[in-house]
Amino acid sequence: MNDSPDPRTCLPAHRQPELRVMPMPADLNPEGNVFGGWIMSMVDIAGAIPAHRRARSRVATVAVNSFAFRQPVSVGDLVSFYAEVVATGRSSVTVDVEVYAERDLENPVVVKVTEARLTYVALDEHGRKQLVPPASPAAPERPAPPSHS
Amino acid sequence: MNDSPDPRTCLPAHRQPELRVMPMPADLNPEGNVFGGWIMSMVDIAGAIPAHRRARSRVATVAVNSFAFRQPVSVGDLVSFYAEVVATGRSSVTVDVEVYAERDLENPVVVKVTEARLTYVALDEHGRKQLVPPASPAAPERPAPPSHS
Amino acid sequence: MNDSPDPRTCLPAHRQPELRVMPMPADLNPEGNVFGGWIMSMVDIAGAIPAHRRARSRVATVAVNSFAFRQPVSVGDLVSFYAEVVATGRSSVTVDVEVYAERDLENPVVVKVTEARLTYVALDEHGRKQLVPPASPAAPERPAPPSHS
Amino acid sequence: MNDSPDPRTCLPAHRQPELRVMPMPADLNPEGNVFGGWIMSMVDIAGAIPAHRRARSRVATVAVNSFAFRQPVSVGDLVSFYAEVVATGRSSVTVDVEVYAERDLENPVVVKVTEARLTYVALDEHGRKQLVPPASPAAPERPAPPSHS
Amino acid sequence: MNDSPDPRTCLPAHRQPELRVMPMPADLNPEGNVFGGWIMSMVDIAGAIPAHRRARSRVATVAVNSFAFRQPVSVGDLVSFYAEVVATGRSSVTVDVEVYAERDLENPVVVKVTEARLTYVALDEHGRKQLVPPASPAAPERPAPPSHS
Amino acid sequence: MNDSPDPRTCLPAHRQPELRVMPMPADLNPEGNVFGGWIMSMVDIAGAIPAHRRARSRVATVAVNSFAFRQPVSVGDLVSFYAEVVATGRSSVTVDVEVYAERDLENPVVVKVTEARLTYVALDEHGRKQLVPPASPAAPERPAPPSHS
Repeated sequence: MNDSPDPRTCLPAHRQPELRVMPMPADLNPEGNVFGGWIMSMVDIAGAIPAHRRARSRVATVAVNSFAFRQPVSVGDLVSFYAEVVATGRSSVTVDVEVYAERDLENPVVVKVTEARLTYVALDEHGRKQLVPPASPAAPERPAPPSHS
Repeated sequence: MNDSPDPRTCLPAHRQPELRVMPMPADLNPEGNVFGGWIMSMVDIAGAIPAHRRARSRVATVAVNSFAFRQPVSVGDLVSFYAEVVATGRSSVTVDVEVYAERDLENPVVVKVTEARLTYVALDEHGRKQLVPPASPAAPERPAPPSHS
Repeated sequence: MNDSPDPRTCLPAHRQPELRVMPMPADLNPEGNVFGGWIMSMVDIAGAIPAHRRARSRVATVAVNSFAFRQPVSVGDLVSFYAEVVATGRSSVTVDVEVYAERDLENPVVVKVTEARLTYVALDEHGRKQLVPPASPAAPERPAPPSHS
Repeated sequence: MNDSPDPRTCLPAHRQPELRVMPMPADLNPEGNVFGGWIMSMVDIAGAIPAHRRARSRVATVAVNSFAFRQPVSVGDLVSFYAEVVATGRSSVTVDVEVYAERDLENPVVVKVTEARLTYVALDEHGRKQLVPPASPAAPERPAPPSHS
Repeated sequence: MNDSPDPRTCLPAHRQPELRVMPMPADLNPEGNVFGGWIMSMVDIAGAIPAHRRARSRVATVAVNSFAFRQPVSVGDLVSFYAEVVATGRSSVTVDVEVYAERDLENPVVVKVTEARLTYVALDEHGRKQLVPPASPAAPERPAPPSHS
Repeated sequence: MNDSPDPRTCLPAHRQPELRVMPMPADLNPEGNVFGGWIMSMVDIAGAIPAHRRARSRVATVAVNSFAFRQPVSVGDLVSFYAEVVATGRSSVTVDVEVYAERDLENPVVVKVTEARLTYVALDEHGRKQLVPPASPAAPERPAPPSHS
C-alpha cells in the first residue's frame, strides 16, 4: 500500500487511547491484512467517545471529513486509537483520530497507520439535533470551520 | 440525525448495486440504529469492486475523501450500495458510492442514506503499487484531481 | 464437489438481485470454501424479501422444498441472490431463489452456484398465520401445489 | 408460525446429540426469534458429522432434500441436533436431522422445532467426489433412492 | 502447550453434554488454535446450564475458581462440554466443567482439553441475589466450601 | 449480581490499559448484560500481552488461577483492561488483570468490574514450551509460587 520505509514512531506520550484493540483473524481481508472497514468502524467508535464527552449527550456521525490509510494493519498488531476534539459548531463536534499499531510485541515497532477527521452531531433523547454546550474555560477550542453542519 | 423531512427518492434506474444487504440486529448500536461503522465497512467493500475492475488488479483503500451520513439506517431496511469510478490517477482509482435504504417492504420508501468518495490504489501481486491501465475507449474518464496519490 | 466443467453463464439480464454480498474469511469452512450454512442463511433472507412484498406482511420460513448446491463459493466471489414468487397458498408464499457467483473481478466468470425453493407463511402482528391477499391483476400467479400449507 | 398447541415431547432417549448449542442475541431476527438461517447453518454442520464418519472422508453438502420448521426457536432455548445416516449412494450420504429445543430450564419443556434431510457427497483430498466405502456389517443401511447423486 | 503425549481417553459414558460445538475458523487465534477465550466463553455458558436448573432461577457468574487448559483445540474438532453441580451455598452454585475434543472424525481420538470450576449466583427477576432452594432428596450434594459467597 | 452499592473508583493513574474496548449489542446475554464469556475472552487476550512481552515469545494460556466478577458490564460502558506480570516460573508467566468500566460518558462513573490471575506458558516457534528469559535488572519480580507449572 506504500512503498516508503516503515515510518517508525512512538505512541503519544502522556495520552491515553480511547480504544486499544487486537484485531482477530475474522477481521482479515482475503489478502491477509485487516479490513479497511474494520479500521473505519473502530475509528468511528473511538472518535465518538470525546465527542460524546464534549457534547454531554450522545452523538451520531454525520461526516468523515478525511481519512488516510498510511500503512496496513496485520493480525497480531496491537492497535491504539487516540482522539481529540478539534472544533465545535452549534450542534456539531469535530474530532481528529490517530491510529497506531504496535507490530511485534517481542521487538516492538510502533507505526502510525491511519489519520482521520470526523464530525459528529449532538442528539437529544428523541434523536434530534441539540446544541453543544459551551466549552469549559479550562479547554478553549477553535470554532468549527464554516462548512460543518 | 437530521431534522429535515425524509427525502424520499427512488433507486437509480438502469443501474445494478455493487452490494445489497440487510443489516442484522448484531449490527445495531445501543441506540437501535445501524452502526456508522457498519455502513463504512460496506461502503469500503462496495467501492473496491469497480476500483478492482478498473485497475484490473486488487486494490487497497488509501483515503476516504468525503463521507456524509444523510439518514440513519434501521434493522429491517434493505440497503443498496451503488458505486462508480469517477477518476483515475497513475496508480489510483477514485470511486463515488451512494447508499439507499428501502425502509418498509410492505409500503416501500426509498431514502438516500449515505454518499461517499474513496480512493483506492492498485496493487501488484507482491502488494506494491502498480500503474492503472488506460481506460478502454468505450468508457472515457476524467483524470484524478491533483491531490490524489 | 462437482467433476463437471464450470458451467459458465451470465447474470440474469433485466433483473435486480434481492441480495448481493461478498463473503468474508469468517464465513469459510476449514476446507477454504464458504459454508453451506452461510449460503443457506443468505438464501433464506433473500427469499423472504419477495415473500414479504407479496404477502404484504412479515413472513416466517416454514419449509425448504429443495436446495441444490451446484458449485462451491470462494472468498472473494461476489454472490448475487435472485428470488421470485412462484406460487401462493391461503397463507403461504413459495419462492425460487437462484444464486450466482462472479468469481474473478479482473476476468469475470459467472457461475450458478445454488438453486432453492422455500415456502414462507404470512404472519400478522401477533405472529399468527394470516391470509395472503389476492395477487394484483398485473402479476398473475399459479396456485401453490397441494402439498404446501 | 404455527397455530397448533406446542407439541411437547422429550429428547430422544439413548441418543447423543451431534451438536447442542444455545443461540445468542446476535442470532435473532428483528422479530425476536432465532433466524431460520441460523438453524439451517447448524443443521448443515450437524448433518455433516455422521456423513463424515460414514464416508470416512470429508464431505460437502449437495442438496437439502426437505426442511420443515415446526416451531420458532427463542434466545435462551437450549437446542439439540440429532442426526443419522438414512441412505448411501455411490458417493453420497443422506442424513436425517431432528432439532429439539428445551425452552425453560426451570420448568423444562422440550419441543421438536425442525426436521430436515440433507445429502452430502464424499470428497477426496483434492476436493473430487469419491466412493463411499461399504457399510460395516454391524450397521446395514438401505441404498439411496434413485434421485440422489 | 504441552510436551506430554496426547492423553487419549473416551467421552464420559452415560452422560449427556451440556453443549457440543464445532469451532469455526473465525474462532482461531493467529497461531491456528482455537482461542482460549472462545473456550472460556463456552465453559461459562455450559456451566450456567446445570446451575440454572439447580437454582431454579437465572444465574450470573461470580467466579472462576480454577481453569486448566490441558491441550489445544483445533478447527474441525468436535468439542463437548460436560458440567455438574458440585456444591451449593446460600445463594451460590458451584459447577465443574470438563471439556473433551474429538479430533478426527475418520479415526476418532478423544482428548480432554480443559477442566474448570466456576461459581454462579442465583438471581431473582430484579437481578438481586436470592436463595438457592434445597436440593431434591434424590440428588444430595455437599455444601459449598466456606470461601464461596 | 451484587447488592452492595456501586464501588466507585478511578482508573489507575500513570498506567496504560492493555486493551480498551466498547462492548456491542452482539456481546449481550439475554438479560441485557455483557456475557461473562466476553469478559473472559478479553481478559485472556489482555493478560497475554505483558506475558508475551515478558517471555519474549508467544504464549498460550495454561490456567485461570482466579477470576472474580464484581459488577456487571453494560452496553455503552467503556471497558479498560490493565495487566501486569506478577510472577514467572521456568517457562510460565503469571499475570494479574484488573478490569474497569466507565459507565456514563456524560457523568462518568468508574467501577472495577473484574479481577483475574492467569498463567501463560512461553512457546517456541514449534509450539513447545521454552524457558522464560531472566528479568531485566530494571524490573525485578518475585518467583512464581510453587503450584505453578
